[in-house]
Amino acid sequence: MGAIIDKAKAAIDRVNALGDLKGKIFTEFDEDRILRAAKTAEDLVAANPDLPLAGKLVSIKDLYDEAGIRTTAASELLKTAAPAREDSVVVRLIKEAGAVPFGRTSMSEFAYSGVGLNPHYGTPGNVFDPEGIPGGSSSGAGVSAGLGLVDIAMGTDTGGSIRIPSAINGLYGYKPSRLSVPRAGVLPLADGFDTPGPLARDLETAISVFEVMSGQSVPRAEDKKLRIGVPVNAFTNDISERVKADFEMICDTLRNAGHELVEIDMGFVAENALVTRDLVSSEAKAIYAKDFAALETCGDPYVLSRLKFADSLTKDDVIAAYAKRTDVIARFGAAVADVDVMIAPTLARMAPKISEVEADIETLNPLMLRNTGMLNLLDACAISIPVGVAGETAPAALMIAATHGRDKAVLNAARLIDPLFD
Amino acid sequence: MGAIIDKAKAAIDRVNALGDLKGKIFTEFDEDRILRAAKTAEDLVAANPDLPLAGKLVSIKDLYDEAGIRTTAASELLKTAAPAREDSVVVRLIKEAGAVPFGRTSMSEFAYSGVGLNPHYGTPGNVFDPEGIPGGSSSGAGVSAGLGLVDIAMGTDTGGSIRIPSAINGLYGYKPSRLSVPRAGVLPLADGFDTPGPLARDLETAISVFEVMSGQSVPRAEDKKLRIGVPVNAFTNDISERVKADFEMICDTLRNAGHELVEIDMGFVAENALVTRDLVSSEAKAIYAKDFAALETCGDPYVLSRLKFADSLTKDDVIAAYAKRTDVIARFGAAVADVDVMIAPTLARMAPKISEVEADIETLNPLMLRNTGMLNLLDACAISIPVGVAGETAPAALMIAATHGRDKAVLNAARLIDPLFD
Repeated sequence: MGAIIDKAKAAIDRVNALGDLKGKIFTEFDEDRILRAAKTAEDLVAANPDLPLAGKLVSIKDLYDEAGIRTTAASELLKTAAPAREDSVVVRLIKEAGAVPFGRTSMSEFAYSGVGLNPHYGTPGNVFDPEGIPGGSSSGAGVSAGLGLVDIAMGTDTGGSIRIPSAINGLYGYKPSRLSVPRAGVLPLADGFDTPGPLARDLETAISVFEVMSGQSVPRAEDKKLRIGVPVNAFTNDISERVKADFEMICDTLRNAGHELVEIDMGFVAENALVTRDLVSSEAKAIYAKDFAALETCGDPYVLSRLKFADSLTKDDVIAAYAKRTDVIARFGAAVADVDVMIAPTLARMAPKISEVEADIETLNPLMLRNTGMLNLLDACAISIPVGVAGETAPAALMIAATHGRDKAVLNAARLIDPLFD
Repeated sequence: MGAIIDKAKAAIDRVNALGDLKGKIFTEFDEDRILRAAKTAEDLVAANPDLPLAGKLVSIKDLYDEAGIRTTAASELLKTAAPAREDSVVVRLIKEAGAVPFGRTSMSEFAYSGVGLNPHYGTPGNVFDPEGIPGGSSSGAGVSAGLGLVDIAMGTDTGGSIRIPSAINGLYGYKPSRLSVPRAGVLPLADGFDTPGPLARDLETAISVFEVMSGQSVPRAEDKKLRIGVPVNAFTNDISERVKADFEMICDTLRNAGHELVEIDMGFVAENALVTRDLVSSEAKAIYAKDFAALETCGDPYVLSRLKFADSLTKDDVIAAYAKRTDVIARFGAAVADVDVMIAPTLARMAPKISEVEADIETLNPLMLRNTGMLNLLDACAISIPVGVAGETAPAALMIAATHGRDKAVLNAARLIDPLFD
């Protein structure tokens, strides 16, 4: 027996002690399979002690194929699907890097919501408030890492589904540039938006996962003073008092550390924020249209209504929506051409209660997705980092973002910014 | 009487001496209006001698509104349209900068072809070969500036329509970042692709027009050695022997001047080159669908067939095509993140004869549009500059490009590269 197996066993014991919560976090939790994976990792790490994810426990969102297991997307529809024949590329890569897949995490059905409610498996509270939403769609991912059951949770992000549960559960959540990481074997929701990525308990671990997923290395850049864009007329407007105060404190801290903050008008993004809804719905509908009849009886009604929304769009509406996306991406590139990164609050408000969302999901789901979703519209890469706030339990969450492909700039900016808030 | 009026009169005399060619270059040529505009410019420049386009004669592609005149797009369909009520924004700006609008230039109908043939007005030869195509769609623009009748020709570029006639007629043709210049009052073809811009006889004039159009200044950057991307698996493959030899000479000259050339795989662009056709057709059809019946009798059959192509695409095809465009733009941004600019031959071959194109427009039109059109797919900004070649009459044409919004980088790179080929 070795350290990795021991670590997995201890974590299994912790999961089994969760009671009801276990089934709200995990859609599948096969102890034998976890222990076999731990043994494999033990052998691999013994031969290669420097593997970048050596001995890390990693929960897997139930959208990633793992050989021999059903990928259910936490839906009833896919509970009888055929088991996956092989691992998704990302799962294969993290295993080769010494990690141990540790249970499959629950989520919003088909990953199509930002709050994290699931009517089939139940909805866990977040780590700071058992009555508060976990954030979605990677809800089980956020809670599994937030509780420290795992070192890393693999999530996916179409409109914020990595960064929202990271923000709510005090984690580092990275949405890489969409095309920089392999998606083969990950159940899609909307091809033009989906990105796999990690939620992790510290920054360097999140960066290591990105390096493993993308095959890119992210060497630490020279220490420097950043030129940071701060959006106005989008991202920083219509936010709660608490988020506003936190963000002002963050900006002050950055300025005091010598970084330069420059305001950038991003009203053009806010004006087009609904484009994301139109396009994600259109792309998702192409995947699930054939299942609408079944979903009428077994599906999450809210998710179904979002899928069906696409039927209200004509071909000309779709043409117009994509053309707008092309435009806002182009404008974003021009707007941030002169800064290293931009920053924004990850969330417009702190996590609501589960009961609040159940009473008004039509308002609260778009609100929770607002800031993160605008960056997906822009096809940006973005990390959410937790920022401790004295006297509060739930930390603030800061997003650091840049245009598609500038992952290294974002991650190195995070390396400079994160220590300011220790 | 002043110098500007004298200049305009002399140019009018030259136009009138062109005989048949006049009607192939200009769809409208109103001497009285030109002389009134020259008088206005004379007065304006007398009061403000430093105006950036003081006394420049500027031909106007028949897509730009000018108050009181019909915008016909060189079609029969629009010959009875109502006259424009006001100047397009660009025309207003260049007049305010001291320029004299000097005739309306012929073009491919609706700007929807890259070779420059027009069945209604006839097709002028280019300035190096009276039997060779002028390039399109801004054909009259290219010939008017190429012959020196005007200092500047205003064109528009949807798939290459500024850069192709510039390349063929030995001019500097700049396609600015699409959203950096105002399009109000310019008849659209495809909103996600159209860009107004100048064809000019020298680089600094082209830059001045961009400054006037965009309201941005392009200060001369520090002299430096450039890092230049040279594409492989697209742009530089399947080109004629002459273009290949020219481009190799260009690359050698750049290297000898101390610039660093790095190969960049752009196979992903070539694989998606047909996306431009699908999207331009879809967007153009939305404009002209109501006119199909009339166009059956009065339109250019080739242009009509391109417009009608959109009907063969389903909503799902359109969704897929736009999603591919989002992807290639993102990949392009990542691919050129580490270089100052990229270069490529503007054209895959030298200008064919008009008779060759009449015999096989289905092959030659896409071929002439190939390199320029891929950069429109990428929503790039790009300039074509003429590069003199010893012993040849028609110069080579070099394209310098970068991602949307990096106009200053492209224009300053052109300032460093152009003198190497004097």
